[in-house]
Amino acid sequence: MDDARITAAELMALARDEVPIAGQLGIVVEAVEPGAVIARVPYRDDFVRPGGTIAGPVMMALADFVMWGVVLSLVGPVHLAVTTSLNINFMRRPLPGDLLAHGSILKLGKRLAVGEVSVYCGEEEDLVAHVTCTYALPPPRRTDEPGI
Amino acid sequence: MDDARITAAELMALARDEVPIAGQLGIVVEAVEPGAVIARVPYRDDFVRPGGTIAGPVMMALADFVMWGVVLSLVGPVHLAVTTSLNINFMRRPLPGDLLAHGSILKLGKRLAVGEVSVYCGEEEDLVAHVTCTYALPPPRRTDEPGI
Amino acid sequence: MDDARITAAELMALARDEVPIAGQLGIVVEAVEPGAVIARVPYRDDFVRPGGTIAGPVMMALADFVMWGVVLSLVGPVHLAVTTSLNINFMRRPLPGDLLAHGSILKLGKRLAVGEVSVYCGEEEDLVAHVTCTYALPPPRRTDEPGI
Amino acid sequence: MDDARITAAELMALARDEVPIAGQLGIVVEAVEPGAVIARVPYRDDFVRPGGTIAGPVMMALADFVMWGVVLSLVGPVHLAVTTSLNINFMRRPLPGDLLAHGSILKLGKRLAVGEVSVYCGEEEDLVAHVTCTYALPPPRRTDEPGI
Repeated sequence: MDDARITAAELMALARDEVPIAGQLGIVVEAVEPGAVIARVPYRDDFVRPGGTIAGPVMMALADFVMWGVVLSLVGPVHLAVTTSLNINFMRRPLPGDLLAHGSILKLGKRLAVGEVSVYCGEEEDLVAHVTCTYALPPPRRTDEPGI
Repeated sequence: MDDARITAAELMALARDEVPIAGQLGIVVEAVEPGAVIARVPYRDDFVRPGGTIAGPVMMALADFVMWGVVLSLVGPVHLAVTTSLNINFMRRPLPGDLLAHGSILKLGKRLAVGEVSVYCGEEEDLVAHVTCTYALPPPRRTDEPGI
Repeated sequence: MDDARITAAELMALARDEVPIAGQLGIVVEAVEPGAVIARVPYRDDFVRPGGTIAGPVMMALADFVMWGVVLSLVGPVHLAVTTSLNINFMRRPLPGDLLAHGSILKLGKRLAVGEVSVYCGEEEDLVAHVTCTYALPPPRRTDEPGI
Repeated sequence: MDDARITAAELMALARDEVPIAGQLGIVVEAVEPGAVIARVPYRDDFVRPGGTIAGPVMMALADFVMWGVVLSLVGPVHLAVTTSLNINFMRRPLPGDLLAHGSILKLGKRLAVGEVSVYCGEEEDLVAHVTCTYALPPPRRTDEPGI
């Protein structure tokens, strides 16, 4: 298997430096392989919503970020890759605790990439949400442009 | 038409006091009618992602919040209403500017509520994202429990 | 407003001649405007599933066809337009009766078209399902190829 | 592991006798385990749509049926289980050939069941579509009602 086109450290740096809204969640990238990314969001009190569970948008932001990492692991740091659709099903109300997301590629096409992300919560790592996500890829030549 | 079961001011207070992750976005509720909510997220630099567009999670968080408001406008401030699924299609890359979301109910059932949210951006209010979202409603009697 | 790039009669002929699985449903195209299509599926006993309601796949096939018509109404009879994703929420169990679908475009881009379809049932035309659907469009030059 | 609450033969009989639109596709159930179903649709010329690929609705009907089987494998032949939402991403244009679907449960709750279905095509069994699907489960007591 080829190496991933981006490392965990590079992906985490991108999150912190260039995607503030993701960086603000304190995402920790735990592993990157070609077509697969694992990331964690350490628990914070301000993630909780009425009912005592972690807010859905935290899980959506984590899943979207992980899928972005999955794409970058295959095509390199192409900043212009953008989400075109995301579908999330919430399985359980996540109790306060770390969120762990496992993302993997389903199909890498020329123009679209499709992947899925499973989000787990707590020490027992219950599945709390499942996401499918589609990214649009920029035309190949753009990756050769200066500064990208 | 009946009045909404929650006012714009009450919904905004809920966002700020009890859903920190939504409150942190600075959401402003502009209108609440029974089964319909309009809300705005004033632009902030930290919403921008690589490519110079507003990050998808900001739009997802806004849409999820607006749909929550749509549900509360019909059933009152039932804290236990939770998102069960959300599907978002991104139409255009939103240029830096305010986000405006219009949410409306498609079906209010006994156990599930389904609605849609259109997200617009900028002065010309281009449609940048479209969301369908399902909320699970708690059994009716729970709304009578103390403290809820 | 420009005229639609395909007529109701042309769209219905396409369904019957070239998309057998859609034609087998007996779809009747009632109206075509640029970016909007209305179609009906007259009731048949073999659409019913356990519980006495119309089977979900009938509604999905109708919605997918209507969205295809919406795309063709804007770009002409481009056979290579294909569905890339479809999301459906079922609102009510449709009692035996005709199905009526209203489709409209949300965004026509260069490579992707996004639209929504509402499916109604029976004399009171209750909303029974809501669909969002994305089509991939072939590169423009292909529409000039012989035979397409 | 417990046995499945329905056998492959029982599921196939249900499709043929009680869900005509699914039975008409000629679905063959290949395996049923608790929370997992494999089914095949042998190729037929009338599944093809313009462009020479198998029509999306065939894949949607297959996936919906397989997910229904996944639910029945866990809760028994509960006729009133109905789809509440379905999301499908199409990966490749399936060339003419058999369709094979693998469905599995993601979460079985009291009121909702969520699962995913992967659809493969041809001798090389390329992944052509990925589906997530939610079923609403009837209240438990109804399964004891006469005739159900």
